[in-house]
Amino acid sequence: MPASEKIYVTSAHAADVKVPIREITLTSPDEPKLRVYDTSGPYTDPDYKVDLEAGLPRRRVEWVKERGGVESYDGRIIKPEDNGNVSGSHLAQAFPIAHQPLRGVGDAPITQYEFARAGIITKEMIYVAERENLGRREVLDRAASALADGESFGTSLPEHITPEFVRDEIARGRAIIPSNINHAELEPMIIGRNFLVKINANIGNSAVSSSVAEEVEKLVWAIRWGADTIMDLSTGRNIHNTRDWIIRNAPVPVGTVPIYQALEKVGGDPVKLDWEVYKDTLIEQCEQGVDYFTIHAGVRLPYVPLTANRMTGIVSRGGSIMAKWCLAHHKESFLYERFDEICDLMRRYDVSFSLGDGLRPGSIYDANDRAQFAELETLGELTQIAWQKGCQVMIEGPGHVPMHKIKINMDKQLKECGEAPFYTLGPLTTDIAPGYDHITSGIGAAMIGWFGCAMLCYVTPKEHLGLPDKNDVKTGVITYKIAAHAADLAKGHPAAQLRDDALSKARFDFRWEDQFNIGLDPTTAREFHDETLPKDAHKVA
Amino acid sequence: MPASEKIYVTSAHAADVKVPIREITLTSPDEPKLRVYDTSGPYTDPDYKVDLEAGLPRRRVEWVKERGGVESYDGRIIKPEDNGNVSGSHLAQAFPIAHQPLRGVGDAPITQYEFARAGIITKEMIYVAERENLGRREVLDRAASALADGESFGTSLPEHITPEFVRDEIARGRAIIPSNINHAELEPMIIGRNFLVKINANIGNSAVSSSVAEEVEKLVWAIRWGADTIMDLSTGRNIHNTRDWIIRNAPVPVGTVPIYQALEKVGGDPVKLDWEVYKDTLIEQCEQGVDYFTIHAGVRLPYVPLTANRMTGIVSRGGSIMAKWCLAHHKESFLYERFDEICDLMRRYDVSFSLGDGLRPGSIYDANDRAQFAELETLGELTQIAWQKGCQVMIEGPGHVPMHKIKINMDKQLKECGEAPFYTLGPLTTDIAPGYDHITSGIGAAMIGWFGCAMLCYVTPKEHLGLPDKNDVKTGVITYKIAAHAADLAKGHPAAQLRDDALSKARFDFRWEDQFNIGLDPTTAREFHDETLPKDAHKVA
Repeated sequence: MPASEKIYVTSAHAADVKVPIREITLTSPDEPKLRVYDTSGPYTDPDYKVDLEAGLPRRRVEWVKERGGVESYDGRIIKPEDNGNVSGSHLAQAFPIAHQPLRGVGDAPITQYEFARAGIITKEMIYVAERENLGRREVLDRAASALADGESFGTSLPEHITPEFVRDEIARGRAIIPSNINHAELEPMIIGRNFLVKINANIGNSAVSSSVAEEVEKLVWAIRWGADTIMDLSTGRNIHNTRDWIIRNAPVPVGTVPIYQALEKVGGDPVKLDWEVYKDTLIEQCEQGVDYFTIHAGVRLPYVPLTANRMTGIVSRGGSIMAKWCLAHHKESFLYERFDEICDLMRRYDVSFSLGDGLRPGSIYDANDRAQFAELETLGELTQIAWQKGCQVMIEGPGHVPMHKIKINMDKQLKECGEAPFYTLGPLTTDIAPGYDHITSGIGAAMIGWFGCAMLCYVTPKEHLGLPDKNDVKTGVITYKIAAHAADLAKGHPAAQLRDDALSKARFDFRWEDQFNIGLDPTTAREFHDETLPKDAHKVA
Repeated sequence: MPASEKIYVTSAHAADVKVPIREITLTSPDEPKLRVYDTSGPYTDPDYKVDLEAGLPRRRVEWVKERGGVESYDGRIIKPEDNGNVSGSHLAQAFPIAHQPLRGVGDAPITQYEFARAGIITKEMIYVAERENLGRREVLDRAASALADGESFGTSLPEHITPEFVRDEIARGRAIIPSNINHAELEPMIIGRNFLVKINANIGNSAVSSSVAEEVEKLVWAIRWGADTIMDLSTGRNIHNTRDWIIRNAPVPVGTVPIYQALEKVGGDPVKLDWEVYKDTLIEQCEQGVDYFTIHAGVRLPYVPLTANRMTGIVSRGGSIMAKWCLAHHKESFLYERFDEICDLMRRYDVSFSLGDGLRPGSIYDANDRAQFAELETLGELTQIAWQKGCQVMIEGPGHVPMHKIKINMDKQLKECGEAPFYTLGPLTTDIAPGYDHITSGIGAAMIGWFGCAMLCYVTPKEHLGLPDKNDVKTGVITYKIAAHAADLAKGHPAAQLRDDALSKARFDFRWEDQFNIGLDPTTAREFHDETLPKDAHKVA
């Protein structure tokens, strides 16, 4: 990024916790450098030599080992079905290095939730505290007035984030640090409504198109523009190998929907799914280092008929897979019935739950119906179980919701799910603009972020129409950075206003270079400016 | 537009009132045709032969004449300074036909407000009643439930719009039909919070670039995608001739900011402005047929110092011109002092007021400050005067406002300005994304539209950076159609949900062609789809 330098801030609480920050230098000597949150990972560090075949440095191995409670072991053997039984030239190259996986042993704390409950502050907690404070130490004097000026709907944004505050929020279940002990390449981040609003970008190959290299490139591209986590939604062949490449090269948490791969393993027929193949898939992905799993355990047999009168039925892929399974077997969902076992398994690797909203509405018409809310109530019940088992939990939300029904979603989620972080897709506030659903949903995302949603899953212009390319990924990420930041501003986040003020001042002073560089997308801003006023003189006048 | 037919619906209340509607034919024989609001004018009528040199048919001449109270007269002589004193090849061609202007005589009602107050229903009122009902006659049975499901913050959306309802809303000052008696080419539309939320697109040449032909093309382009009104913000040379071409070819209301042209007439120096040159400019534009004037009469001398501690001072061009004038002469604004005379003049042509917010904030930091609200209070005072004088009035609003301060703007405007329609620019909900201000502002626009704002002035991706080209105009218009529609949906507008439902059903049925055609931008939706799934089979599967 132009006029930017990547710096590392060492936490006062731990000498080996160095947090990356991007510092933007302004053209006016009177203006201080502006620090902004940096999701881009080592890729933007000029001292780092990118080597996708080696993967990123695995600094977190030490953090995990030094606190104990884990063992390394020979992981599960990779099977042909993990990659869709492809071979020869159709098989994507395996990641060159096989790291021996770690897992928890016994009852000692393993997850961030367990450490937090035990009153222990982890390196990850120290890291995110430093990361969230971003320039805020310098502006403590204005933090109180920023908070007083905002409207945060009764949440508890602090003036300054301490590791102890982080620990307490995690212990209460109000925040999570998705951080599989096997994802040692991770730069930890936190998701919770007393922290900066985060955004997720979906990537993933499909049966139709795209390759492993493209997916890694999309990851690097998405985090360059500000994605806080990415979800690998790959389907079809080569799922295992693609994911390996992604995780080994991902400084951000990686989420997946394990049922997608399980389905591939049974030839694509939901009816053939069972607990064994699903469990095997979970272990496979736990060992690889996936940080959070979308698990649609709230799609219960009795809820499926509630969708009968919908305009658009069940549109969540995971939800529709599980609904088909339940109806075909006329049995309660095995995800629901085996939820205890799923928790025990995920706990050993500290994989966070992202409890899926398989019955989310697929249209404005279906928003906030009984099927959706029945599932949400079940997710609340499951949240309590996951916490009892020591797991970190967030909750997924819709989807398609008109503006006047958005706050109801947020309020009900907080109530039903004990304030576990909410993670929504959009929501889209109207269905009439295919090709522009980043905008229809950006409106809803900004609003629900303001109301308390902790993470916003991006929607690209290709939503409902096709697979996003690089441009679409960028547009989706920037749109959602806007939504998340607008939400932070409205909540009165102590650091949020700083960047707006720096840009507004630059605008008023006609410091064009600064205007470009402070913005979310300096390249586009500069191009747009130069189209009508290409002369350099116009940039300083 | 694909699969679309332009039809004309004759009002049951007047045989010569024929309202254009676009009817979309769906591929499924089970699905009824979908009627959508049509702003595109005769240009999309296959039976109409476009002839820019002749201008559009002047059907409204008869309506104005038959109700009396007007005279035709020899208009003001066009002066060289009207076009910036250019000559020869620099002078844009004059519009070929000079229509003799009309003006009101005596005390008989002239304006829609006066007719409404007198209990008289005009053809324009009948026209907009029919236009707003759009498919709603067919769905009267669901109107009540749509309204009950929405949240309209205490406004009075009816199940069905009658001409009498229109008259009553205008008489209360809650709605306006901008319709200069000299803009005979107009297809009337209504602006008020009990009607569909409208959007405005700014066009206009500038000293830097663009030609007359380009501006007319931008107008036709903007209304093709859904602009309900356009503002001609031309500066520099050829202002008069450019405007003539635009108005004679505009089926939508045209607004201007007369002070821009007045400033050109005094060589660009605000200090040299005076009442005479301003009044002369008003007459010039009244005779041409401008439908609404932005008049910054609320920028009063005592308010200017209130902006001293702002981060971004005065960013409204009109506001800053008037502030300079006030300070230089140390006198109260002549717009404020001569407001009575301005009303008398505008009343004779039924030019509506758009009372300008010259002190609107230019940054998130400055939002909702004392300067802004002091001006708004004055606009409330001026609204009462304009009504007493028989004029139609709307009020302009900001600008740059974080989400949590938007509703305060709407509520204060309603209170201070006696429910006169609010017309806002955005507002932008953050300043950190130059190049994407259609999105930062689309979020704010959707919200304030929901809260009761009657018209949303679009912002294009080039805002703050350069002049919008055709693509930018389209992106701005579509983004604002999304915002306006999302607002209508949330308010519970009886007709709004219909289009969403039609699209959602098409999506669920995999009727791709219908999905494209029902959407706001069929071309883009189809292109996006075809990038990944180009085969025709994929459009019906």
